[in-house]
Amino acid sequence: MNTTIVGQSLPLIDGVEKVTGRGVYGVDVRVPGMVFARILRSPYAHARIVQIDASKAEKIQGVHAVVTCNDLPDRRVGLALKDEYVLARDKVRYAGEAVAAVAAVDLETADEALKAIQVEYQELTPVFDAREALREDAPRIHEDLANYQQSAYITRFIQPIPNSNVASHIKLRKGDIEAGFLQADVVLEDTFYCPRIHHCYMEPHAVLAEYTPEKIAVWSNGQRPFDIRTYMADLFGLPMSKVRVINTMIGGGFGGKITAKLEPIAVALSRKSQRPVKLVLNRQEEFQGFGGAHSAWVKIKSGATKNGKLTAREMEVIWDAGAAADLGVSVALLAGVVGASGPYRIPNLKLDSYLVYTNKVNPTALRGMGMQQVSWAVESQTDMLAEKLGIDPIEFRMRNALEEGDRSATGEVLESVSVKECLKKVADAMEWGSKPKAANQGRAICVWHKFSAPATTSSAAVKVNADGSVTLLTGSSEIGQGSKTVLAQIAAEELGVSLEEVSVISGDTDATPFDHGSFSSRVTHHTGNAVKFAAEDARGQILNLAAEMMQPMEITPEALDLRDHRVFVRSLPDTGLPLAEVALAAQIRYGKPILGKGSFRGQGSHRLDPETGQSNQPAASEWIYVAQGVDIEVDPESGVIKVLKLIGAYDCGKAINPLAARGQIIGGVMMGVGLSLYEEMHYEDGQNVNPNFMDYMIPTISEAPPMEVILVENPHPLGPYGAKGIGEASIVLIPAAIGNALYNATGVRLRELPLTPDRVLNAIEAKR
Amino acid sequence: MNTTIVGQSLPLIDGVEKVTGRGVYGVDVRVPGMVFARILRSPYAHARIVQIDASKAEKIQGVHAVVTCNDLPDRRVGLALKDEYVLARDKVRYAGEAVAAVAAVDLETADEALKAIQVEYQELTPVFDAREALREDAPRIHEDLANYQQSAYITRFIQPIPNSNVASHIKLRKGDIEAGFLQADVVLEDTFYCPRIHHCYMEPHAVLAEYTPEKIAVWSNGQRPFDIRTYMADLFGLPMSKVRVINTMIGGGFGGKITAKLEPIAVALSRKSQRPVKLVLNRQEEFQGFGGAHSAWVKIKSGATKNGKLTAREMEVIWDAGAAADLGVSVALLAGVVGASGPYRIPNLKLDSYLVYTNKVNPTALRGMGMQQVSWAVESQTDMLAEKLGIDPIEFRMRNALEEGDRSATGEVLESVSVKECLKKVADAMEWGSKPKAANQGRAICVWHKFSAPATTSSAAVKVNADGSVTLLTGSSEIGQGSKTVLAQIAAEELGVSLEEVSVISGDTDATPFDHGSFSSRVTHHTGNAVKFAAEDARGQILNLAAEMMQPMEITPEALDLRDHRVFVRSLPDTGLPLAEVALAAQIRYGKPILGKGSFRGQGSHRLDPETGQSNQPAASEWIYVAQGVDIEVDPESGVIKVLKLIGAYDCGKAINPLAARGQIIGGVMMGVGLSLYEEMHYEDGQNVNPNFMDYMIPTISEAPPMEVILVENPHPLGPYGAKGIGEASIVLIPAAIGNALYNATGVRLRELPLTPDRVLNAIEAKR
Repeated sequence: MNTTIVGQSLPLIDGVEKVTGRGVYGVDVRVPGMVFARILRSPYAHARIVQIDASKAEKIQGVHAVVTCNDLPDRRVGLALKDEYVLARDKVRYAGEAVAAVAAVDLETADEALKAIQVEYQELTPVFDAREALREDAPRIHEDLANYQQSAYITRFIQPIPNSNVASHIKLRKGDIEAGFLQADVVLEDTFYCPRIHHCYMEPHAVLAEYTPEKIAVWSNGQRPFDIRTYMADLFGLPMSKVRVINTMIGGGFGGKITAKLEPIAVALSRKSQRPVKLVLNRQEEFQGFGGAHSAWVKIKSGATKNGKLTAREMEVIWDAGAAADLGVSVALLAGVVGASGPYRIPNLKLDSYLVYTNKVNPTALRGMGMQQVSWAVESQTDMLAEKLGIDPIEFRMRNALEEGDRSATGEVLESVSVKECLKKVADAMEWGSKPKAANQGRAICVWHKFSAPATTSSAAVKVNADGSVTLLTGSSEIGQGSKTVLAQIAAEELGVSLEEVSVISGDTDATPFDHGSFSSRVTHHTGNAVKFAAEDARGQILNLAAEMMQPMEITPEALDLRDHRVFVRSLPDTGLPLAEVALAAQIRYGKPILGKGSFRGQGSHRLDPETGQSNQPAASEWIYVAQGVDIEVDPESGVIKVLKLIGAYDCGKAINPLAARGQIIGGVMMGVGLSLYEEMHYEDGQNVNPNFMDYMIPTISEAPPMEVILVENPHPLGPYGAKGIGEASIVLIPAAIGNALYNATGVRLRELPLTPDRVLNAIEAKR
Repeated sequence: MNTTIVGQSLPLIDGVEKVTGRGVYGVDVRVPGMVFARILRSPYAHARIVQIDASKAEKIQGVHAVVTCNDLPDRRVGLALKDEYVLARDKVRYAGEAVAAVAAVDLETADEALKAIQVEYQELTPVFDAREALREDAPRIHEDLANYQQSAYITRFIQPIPNSNVASHIKLRKGDIEAGFLQADVVLEDTFYCPRIHHCYMEPHAVLAEYTPEKIAVWSNGQRPFDIRTYMADLFGLPMSKVRVINTMIGGGFGGKITAKLEPIAVALSRKSQRPVKLVLNRQEEFQGFGGAHSAWVKIKSGATKNGKLTAREMEVIWDAGAAADLGVSVALLAGVVGASGPYRIPNLKLDSYLVYTNKVNPTALRGMGMQQVSWAVESQTDMLAEKLGIDPIEFRMRNALEEGDRSATGEVLESVSVKECLKKVADAMEWGSKPKAANQGRAICVWHKFSAPATTSSAAVKVNADGSVTLLTGSSEIGQGSKTVLAQIAAEELGVSLEEVSVISGDTDATPFDHGSFSSRVTHHTGNAVKFAAEDARGQILNLAAEMMQPMEITPEALDLRDHRVFVRSLPDTGLPLAEVALAAQIRYGKPILGKGSFRGQGSHRLDPETGQSNQPAASEWIYVAQGVDIEVDPESGVIKVLKLIGAYDCGKAINPLAARGQIIGGVMMGVGLSLYEEMHYEDGQNVNPNFMDYMIPTISEAPPMEVILVENPHPLGPYGAKGIGEASIVLIPAAIGNALYNATGVRLRELPLTPDRVLNAIEAKR
């Protein structure tokens, strides 16, 4: 299709608002009469709550409300598995768990009140390591796991093991794993560890809630406003129509703003204080209250023949769920099983993914949805296998790469597959195999796949106003990824208007049609389709009316085209009507104002066969492919790894806005660099000890290496203009690529992230 | 149709918000950083502006912006005819005209700045009386009238007379007027006068405007938010999609909050100050800046035969337009011609309606749209004719009353006609002709018709949420008339849910589909239809999906019904699915969240034949009928009229909510009592001298007589459930009824309103 706006590198439509600071983020929202909230958190990782006495706190001047679990329904909540309380009830399961909250005239008063709340705890034995928590004799964190309910609205494939700490155990069995290893000439078995890292969105969680008998209004910087609405309606016993969730601008999400931990607290405080309540976390609380991404132990055993064909792969992934399953159920399913074995043809597979409760705050989805944890293991071992086999690692990958029409591990037929193309493009760009390498330098290329969550829905509406301008309504959230711009481009393209004429209203559950929200790289593909269909619907209404307006000519709508603000006869381009004339007539003359609607459900199902992990429906929405290569230099004296260059090839199907796609990718690459070299949430006795940006290291612009982005456009048959979601893929291979390059440079193989100078130095010294 | 929610007297869904004061009206809206505006108004009624110097004002500490006409485009504006400036340019045409405006940190500073603005005027000869303004030698108020433009968006039938003060002259010629008078046995000729009264909405005009480079946001208590959007987009040169108008709660409109006089000033101030600007009028400014309803001189000549048949009617109505045509063009057309001659069969008509500029602030539409001004004349003369003919006045009306299928004055065939039924019901309720009357008491019954403006459009959308609750989106405004409740009842009825489950989002131009707004009694009929169609569309989607979900049964959607939160098989009522299950499946399983849309255009066209006033299209949307009767007692010593009882029969087609309909009617009756007995805006030398509620008298609860409301339900074929708009009809007959009752009591006939004690006393004394 010949597009004029789609495919253009246009600046973000909300860019000026952002750089001028004019945009209203969650932390900026103010309403008259609002009061300010603070949360009291448990100092213990595992303890029984004997008693809470808030009477002193309530008496402090300026305190408007104190809430505990008694101000909320006695019901467990949870995104998919209902395994936690909004405010702790009976016991606490992690240090930092919210026990009570206060709304007061200012934050100082609220803090004073927190200190006046008396909580009596009785300590219980905690367990912090997921491997230990798996033991038969480990303390039980959720005693009643067998009876926990699942959400009717967010259905996930969850297999808890009763009377254990396993929130979910997902299995995949394909072929004959033992026979597969017998066919192999080389078998390697290793264990890799990926630590817990934090999302480090610049803007903290921020909520403003206003409870009135008529309606609950919540301003939130959450990524899934419709989920928040469902949650609040369900929890507070109101029809969904009586809850309005309004997205503010969102200063980064990366998965960390999916779970609505603050919203119910703020609503409960607002209900009790009868005032609008604002609740914003500080950075320390972000680390205490939100557990980043899942750390994972990945045991991997792979076999290959002498001629470089993979015959079998066995993996056991242990995800540290912290104290709540949350989106860990998706991570354990999607990264632990569906995509775990990598973008390779492997006839025999045995995969076990365990989501294990511990006494730490729960992690959640983080850009990449767990893929980087498993790809770190798989792609490290892929290089190790290639070396053992004496085959060039790129050649080894090419021999096993998935191709168009192959089946995924869970059995779905794959479309728009670009494993080899991405690999080749990066290899060419890096002059793989030909460029000489200096001392202490190393290089590597890895390849991976990613996909959107299955079975999610987007819908959208498009109003064409009387002057031909366009108002686009979408329930998705702009979380900094550029979705407003991309969606506006699609609407502008279909309706023949300029980008400036399109206004995007997003993330307001009253105003906009339903959308599952912004996560899992789903917006461009899913919401993009919904917007495209809505715009096509509107376009159809316009052409129909225009044909009627040109009636004496006996033109059919099919003979008309709409471009550049004009409806015209395709065969007689000079004959036509201005779009604005048709839009005005629609409103005034025909009484049918142009309103298009569209919806799209991504393919797939969350449900797999419980024993084999096979499914007759896709376990994923559209798959995307990525190859990333790296050149590094290692300082043998300090152990410092310097990334010289990062080159990636990313199959996004179609880049609706190449500039925005590149921006997304570069951000993801930098998160990958952080994960590889710097980041880890450290715990001592269940207490996070680096909950701030002095002690928790994230890369800054000084650590940004030269980056090259190659956009591969292998259109997906279901995507809008062929587009697939690109938001997350760029993070997933950086650890493995750098780890392999480290080996290439030094002969040192590390199996635990991050690749800090001391670890590198120790390994180099040990090798000497 | 068997309805369960439509037709019920349910409390207003926004009633609690209102009575508790929790609702956010225009005056209540606050946003962070806002500054406060005041307007500088001309002290002269007609003057050239020689110079404006705002430099001193701009230097005052705390002043953020001063705007004059130079801060706005050099273009005339106006609802239909563009005949005025936002801020006066070159000359002022009335005392009180806005000349400049200031935004400052507080109102005191703004007031100080107003005083510092130096305006040099050169006085011109003014003209205040519309009859004088018609003279050849009268000062010209609009020198360039011949070249004035009309709006592309609000098209009205306007016939200005170039080089005169006549903004519009509408004519109607039907039959042979001279022959008609020759057939008559009795001919009467009289002139009646109806003064200018004010709308007296409790809440003044209030606007908050925020101009950013991305978007203009306007919070307004205006009755037609989409018009305001069109106006702002057009004036400030932006696409409509970049302007958002959000209705606050509205403390009364009655037509007085259609014209957006404040909005462009606030936007200009916000653009210049780069701050949100709040502009609220005080009561004096309401009288200075908004001219209430049109005063009118009505010359009427009617002829009838001995057996009581009307043969001819000739009318000349002179409407005082003030300095701008505004909605006077509609009043002159609709009340001055289309409905002027009353609900009677009159074969020969000659009507001339003149909208005449004077040097006073322009009036606008007021509940009844000018009908009370002409009905005062027509229905007074009807009683005079009956007396002259010796026929009972009710009998005389019955002999001439329009019937189903008759044609209106402009030639349209009338449907759902209830003139006789309404008359009869009131006559019965009053025991007309049988109940004895005491000394100094008088009684009368009058009858009239009213209609909605032709050719207006409403559209609406309905979302059925995953729990089966309903979010209804409408662009109409809740102005206190109860529209939110009525529209919610319609949606609840169609979708089988309770009223509490429906949330109504109204009057937000970003969120809601287009609607022409709340005026001319149009919402129940027009928006009601749009909501009904949208709900039917949603219902159809639900039944389709339910049939699919019940697939093994091979059920067709047509075999299903939806009631009381359940979809079920009509022939097997126990077989079905909960609505919530279908709604959730629509979202999650089918990826087609339920979103219904509907639109409706009321019948008709504004255009009449310029010479004859005839039209082959209806000149009105649905007609409604009303009869009102009154018992009064006159104190011959003081001239005070005491209204003993007011009984009315109102054909609303179908009362969606009888309680709300009664509330509407009682409010209108009280406005009619005010117009009849108390209200008049007094001018001296072009200055309104009673601009406050001490000097301008409106009836209070103490003046409220016993009122009886008879709802007549003669369904209109195009109405939702047969409904027709009832909002205005109850005001229109009160003056004529009380005037006729005064004659009945005392033999005194007054021809000028209001019927004040001194006028009554003078007339009684003159008669003696």
